[in-house]
Amino acid sequence: MRLRKKPWIAKAITGFSDIVLQNPGEELQGKWKGLFGNDLPVHAELGTGKGRFIAGMADEYRQQVNFVGMEAQRDVVYYAAQKVCEQELINVRLLVFDVNHILTIFAPGEVDRLYINFCDPWPKNRHAKRRLTHIEFLKKYQCILKPGGQLWFKTDNRPLFEFSLDQFNEFGLTVNSVTYDLLHSGFEGNVMTEYETKFSSLGQPICRCEVNF
Amino acid sequence: MRLRKKPWIAKAITGFSDIVLQNPGEELQGKWKGLFGNDLPVHAELGTGKGRFIAGMADEYRQQVNFVGMEAQRDVVYYAAQKVCEQELINVRLLVFDVNHILTIFAPGEVDRLYINFCDPWPKNRHAKRRLTHIEFLKKYQCILKPGGQLWFKTDNRPLFEFSLDQFNEFGLTVNSVTYDLLHSGFEGNVMTEYETKFSSLGQPICRCEVNF
Repeated sequence: MRLRKKPWIAKAITGFSDIVLQNPGEELQGKWKGLFGNDLPVHAELGTGKGRFIAGMADEYRQQVNFVGMEAQRDVVYYAAQKVCEQELINVRLLVFDVNHILTIFAPGEVDRLYINFCDPWPKNRHAKRRLTHIEFLKKYQCILKPGGQLWFKTDNRPLFEFSLDQFNEFGLTVNSVTYDLLHSGFEGNVMTEYETKFSSLGQPICRCEVNF
Repeated sequence: MRLRKKPWIAKAITGFSDIVLQNPGEELQGKWKGLFGNDLPVHAELGTGKGRFIAGMADEYRQQVNFVGMEAQRDVVYYAAQKVCEQELINVRLLVFDVNHILTIFAPGEVDRLYINFCDPWPKNRHAKRRLTHIEFLKKYQCILKPGGQLWFKTDNRPLFEFSLDQFNEFGLTVNSVTYDLLHSGFEGNVMTEYETKFSSLGQPICRCEVNF
């Protein structure tokens, strides 16, 4: 997601400091349940964007799940935080954070489920390692996911999806509920991201799968 | 304007503290040009709402006019502040403020123009004194307006408009550019408020006039 630089957000986002962690680090490791003040499962989204997905999910699972959204672009996080506040969601925290460092903020087994929605496909082969479903990332996810934890993955980019299925397979993971057309797959309770709403309305099929760790 | 109570805004609005003055008082009297850091004229809007009008005006007169928006409802001011920031307007300040106390924050003659847009008509006679064009308010405006200063007034409420014209007349003020149908009046450069956009699109005629003090 690209936004024009918005210098005013540096200050405006401080108004959401209950929800937004701008410099998350090792102090969070193993502390997530304490931070949310309950024992509910922790789900994390990698690349939260403007937050429609995480806010929608957190609204649907208010009493059941805590959500952690990670997004590298601070200016985008501001709008996600506003959504979270407007919907009065107390089960969400948003991190201005580069997912590359995900091992620093979660303890082993601390996460119950990961979501990757419409991540950058990095189409050039020499950038393959940057794809969030590259095997080097899967290794990190395995560290922080509890045994039996899952990754739910959505993309409209078919080559990325094929690449990802290969990586899951190569890493020895079981993949379920694979669909190349989510809208017509019978999957219920799909919460759409900003992009997904746009793509779907244009008739673009969405690929989706669930990966068991 | 009525909004559902939004407790989160108490904190979120602190992110706009450069623009929003939440407890404005006498310390501002005579200090407005210093506050804006220039000698430009000061225009003030009474009842800024979500700020479309003041942001639109401030955008059009970036180098020419400083704008002060007053709005009693804090939660609404938050959205106005966001507009001001998104449009990168440095010539606007927003006050969480009850217009009844307008004499406390401006020195005599400190304001060049006032705007009243779609104020509450207070239709019951026993509430007439609450109308922002009541003669008791006009007395206050005369104190803070510089000689030759103006009030620009818009409303879609015809009875309120008639009442207001009477009050202006009774107070001995000259009224110009009176129209009962702004959209078809030939007035150029009209900047619409949120309400006005809605009313106008429904075919509701808008009354407007300029009052010379």
